[in-house]
Amino acid sequence: MSDAATGNGTQVIYDGHIVRLELLEGKWEIVRHADAVAILALNDSGEMLLVRQRRRAIGTSTVEAPAGLIDAGETPEQAARRELQEEVGLDGDMTLLTRFYSSPGFCDEELYIFEARGLRESKLPHDEDEEIEVVWIPPQAVLDGLRDGTLVGSATTVAAALYALQRVAAR
Amino acid sequence: MSDAATGNGTQVIYDGHIVRLELLEGKWEIVRHADAVAILALNDSGEMLLVRQRRRAIGTSTVEAPAGLIDAGETPEQAARRELQEEVGLDGDMTLLTRFYSSPGFCDEELYIFEARGLRESKLPHDEDEEIEVVWIPPQAVLDGLRDGTLVGSATTVAAALYALQRVAAR
Repeated sequence: MSDAATGNGTQVIYDGHIVRLELLEGKWEIVRHADAVAILALNDSGEMLLVRQRRRAIGTSTVEAPAGLIDAGETPEQAARRELQEEVGLDGDMTLLTRFYSSPGFCDEELYIFEARGLRESKLPHDEDEEIEVVWIPPQAVLDGLRDGTLVGSATTVAAALYALQRVAAR
Repeated sequence: MSDAATGNGTQVIYDGHIVRLELLEGKWEIVRHADAVAILALNDSGEMLLVRQRRRAIGTSTVEAPAGLIDAGETPEQAARRELQEEVGLDGDMTLLTRFYSSPGFCDEELYIFEARGLRESKLPHDEDEEIEVVWIPPQAVLDGLRDGTLVGSATTVAAALYALQRVAAR
């Protein structure tokens, strides 16, 4: 957050744990949110790792790529490696596939999508109060999920689409 | 918004024009935001339509697929056709490609991605105070933009990835 963002017609409406809501020039409602990472983790059979978790914002459980916020002082790659170890007990070699803003019309959250290969067991403690169930889905289910809306988050959709693109291009 | 969402431990912190901020059970910060559409519009040369516009939330101008909020009473397809006519003066035949939540960890905004073919001129007045510049980019630039972060919004990234997938699959 630059100093400029807090002056010059910006009113802070709420400054919370993960969300900061600002009103710019008396009319633009802007949500500030930490940047995040998501991981396209693939095993030797080409299956994609997903996690099922409760998402209160949309009132349901979802199946998504492992993901999480980037902590202060972390690089996106460090966050990706930490999240994968915390959520599913795996570490891997990370390659940045792409980055984008989740919803740039009103929110500054940027998402970094990593591909993880060479997966190996490496567990870090996971202290959030959420239960996470791990699901591996085969390549065809990734393609199907892209179309039927099973893969619900933008990070997961992008990861699945880029994976499908790799698969089709390699044919 | 269901009645249930406003009771039972939910505190409304701010209820604004496009954003409603709630605190669930005293700790979960949830942003309610209208659903939105984005359009993968393709001309006969296979070029993808993008619009350049100022995005205050991220402090810059972006190049994104045409997009906008779904108005009350509109279907997602109606919103897609209206937005394309308002933003770039074109109508087209819409096919839903996919849908996803922009950031389901804290926000309920759902995005519907349509492909528009058979483009024809059809202008609707555009009353928002934003200048929009239209850019057509060739297929290779779509692929490049997927990787280098030029295409900054999740809707645009998904649209571009699905378009790249179509192109590669058709080879």
